[in-house]
Amino acid sequence: MTTRTKRINNVAIVGGTHGNEFSGIYLLRKWQQQASDITRGSFSTQTVFANPQAFEANKRYLDCDMNRQFGLDDLANPDLANYEQSRAKAINAQLGPKGDAKTDFIIDLHNTTSNMGASLILLRQDTFNRQLGAYVKANMADAIVVLEDQVSMTEHHFLCSIADQGVIVEVGPQPQSVIRQDVLDWMDEMTKHILDFIDLFNRNEVPALPATFEAFKYHETLKLPESEQGERIGMVHRNVQDADFKVLRHGDPLFTLFDGTVIYWDGDYEAYPHFINEAAYYDNNLAMSLAKKVTVTV
Amino acid sequence: MTTRTKRINNVAIVGGTHGNEFSGIYLLRKWQQQASDITRGSFSTQTVFANPQAFEANKRYLDCDMNRQFGLDDLANPDLANYEQSRAKAINAQLGPKGDAKTDFIIDLHNTTSNMGASLILLRQDTFNRQLGAYVKANMADAIVVLEDQVSMTEHHFLCSIADQGVIVEVGPQPQSVIRQDVLDWMDEMTKHILDFIDLFNRNEVPALPATFEAFKYHETLKLPESEQGERIGMVHRNVQDADFKVLRHGDPLFTLFDGTVIYWDGDYEAYPHFINEAAYYDNNLAMSLAKKVTVTV
Repeated sequence: MTTRTKRINNVAIVGGTHGNEFSGIYLLRKWQQQASDITRGSFSTQTVFANPQAFEANKRYLDCDMNRQFGLDDLANPDLANYEQSRAKAINAQLGPKGDAKTDFIIDLHNTTSNMGASLILLRQDTFNRQLGAYVKANMADAIVVLEDQVSMTEHHFLCSIADQGVIVEVGPQPQSVIRQDVLDWMDEMTKHILDFIDLFNRNEVPALPATFEAFKYHETLKLPESEQGERIGMVHRNVQDADFKVLRHGDPLFTLFDGTVIYWDGDYEAYPHFINEAAYYDNNLAMSLAKKVTVTV
Repeated sequence: MTTRTKRINNVAIVGGTHGNEFSGIYLLRKWQQQASDITRGSFSTQTVFANPQAFEANKRYLDCDMNRQFGLDDLANPDLANYEQSRAKAINAQLGPKGDAKTDFIIDLHNTTSNMGASLILLRQDTFNRQLGAYVKANMADAIVVLEDQVSMTEHHFLCSIADQGVIVEVGPQPQSVIRQDVLDWMDEMTKHILDFIDLFNRNEVPALPATFEAFKYHETLKLPESEQGERIGMVHRNVQDADFKVLRHGDPLFTLFDGTVIYWDGDYEAYPHFINEAAYYDNNLAMSLAKKVTVTV
C-alpha cells in the first residue's frame, strides 16, 4: 500500500539547470510572456532559471554538474562552495529545503543529444507517479517513461529531488547550444500534460487511465571502450547510434574501436539503451544507460 | 582558359581546427596508427592538429574562431596575439607562408551540427577543383559539393587558404563534442577519395569523369530573427530543420518566432539552405547559409 500524495499547491518549473540545454531556457522566456500556458486553477506555478552563468558562458556548467549537487550531505556541507554548489544551496533555500520543501512538485527541463524523443523520467513509483506516467502517455502518443527509482527521492542528487515530488523532462536529440523547434514543441507539450495532470489530481478528476503502461527501468551504465591507460579507444557502434529504447541483445554489436574492431554486448538480458552517445557524458567516458522494459500497473 | 595546376608534392591533413569537432581529431589519431590509409606514392602526407588547447578545453576555440584567422593582413599583424591568432601564425609558418606555401594542398576536416552529410567545400573553380569534385561525387554516391569561390583563395580567411590548393571536408550532423561512427566513416571515406584523386592527377591517370555535376554555390547568409534590441526572438522553422540542400522557395516557412508567429521566406530565387541551425553560428546569430544550385562543367 502506498501513501496518498497530498494535494499539490506549489509547482516550480526549472529550466537551464545545464546552461547549454536551450529548450527549457527559451520556454521559460516564452512562458514569462504567456503565463496562461503554465497557469492552472488548483495550484501556483513559478519558474526558475537554474544556471544563468553557465548559459551566459554557453556551457553545461562552470565548475561542476549542477544536477548532481542536491544530495542532503552536499547541501549541508559549507565547504562545497563553487558556483554550481552555491547555486544548488540557493535553489534549495528558494524551493526547499529538501526534506521539508515549500515546493510540492518540481519539473526540471533537460535536453539530450541522444535520440530519446520526449522522455518523462520518474524518480518514484507511487500511485501519483504511476498515474502521471499513464496520463502523459495516454495524451502524448510518442512519450516515453523512464524509471530511475533505484534509490529513494531523498537519496537522489537531482535538483528536482528537493521537493517531495518531482520529475525530469528529457527531450532530444538536440545538439548542445541549439534550439530545435521539434524538440521545443515536445517539451512544451509534455510540460502542459504534467500540469494538466496535477490539476486533475488536485480536483479528484483524474480520468480513467489504462490499467498498465510500458516503461524503461534504469539498470546500469556502460562506459566507452578505454585503453589500460584510460584513453578512449572506441565509439558507439553505428547500429546502436540513435537506437535509444530499441532492444539490445547478447551478441549484438555495441562499440567500434578506432582500429576497426567490433565489440559485442555480452549481457544476459534484453537491454534498452538510452542516453546513447550523450555529449555531456563524455566527461566521464560514459557510452549509454541500459534499462529493462517493464510493465507498470497503474 | 585556366592555369594548369602544378604537381602536388606535399599534402597536409588538418584536424581539430575547432576543438569540439571530434571526427578529424580522432581520424588523425587513427592515421597515426595506420599511416598507410593516407599514404600515396606520388606525394608526401603530414597531419596537423590545429587547435589542441581548444580540444583540451572541449570548446570550439579559446579566444576566437581559428578558421577565420588566415587573412594575409591578419597573419602579418603582430598585434593579433591571442591563442588562435598565435596558432594561425604558427601553422602559417609550418605549412605556408600563405602566397608562397611549402604545402601544395591542405585538407581541413570539420564537423557541423547541421544535416549536411558528407560535403566537400571547394574554394576555387579551376580545372583541378572541378575534376576533384567530379571524382569525389563519382566515387561517393551521397557526397555533396559546395562552392565557396565568391572570393579568391588569397582573400579567404580559412586555414586551408594557406596553400595554393585546399578544401574543407564538412560532415554532419554531429553534435559538438561527440563522435558518431557514421560521420567518422564518411569523413574517412571522403578524405581517401581526395587523396586518391591527387595521386591520379599527379600520375596523369585521372579516369574519364562525368562531363558535368551538380553543386551548391554559396549566395548569402540569413540571420535568426532578432528584436530591435538584438535579442533572439525565434528559431528555424521545423520544416527547414535538417532540410539542408532541399529547395526553399518564395513563401515557404522559414522561421518560427517564440510567440508562434511564422516567418516566410521572401527571396526571389530557388535557394538551397545549408549549415541550417549550426550550433557554432549562434555566436553571430546566424540561421543558415543559402546556395544556388549550379551545374559545374568538368
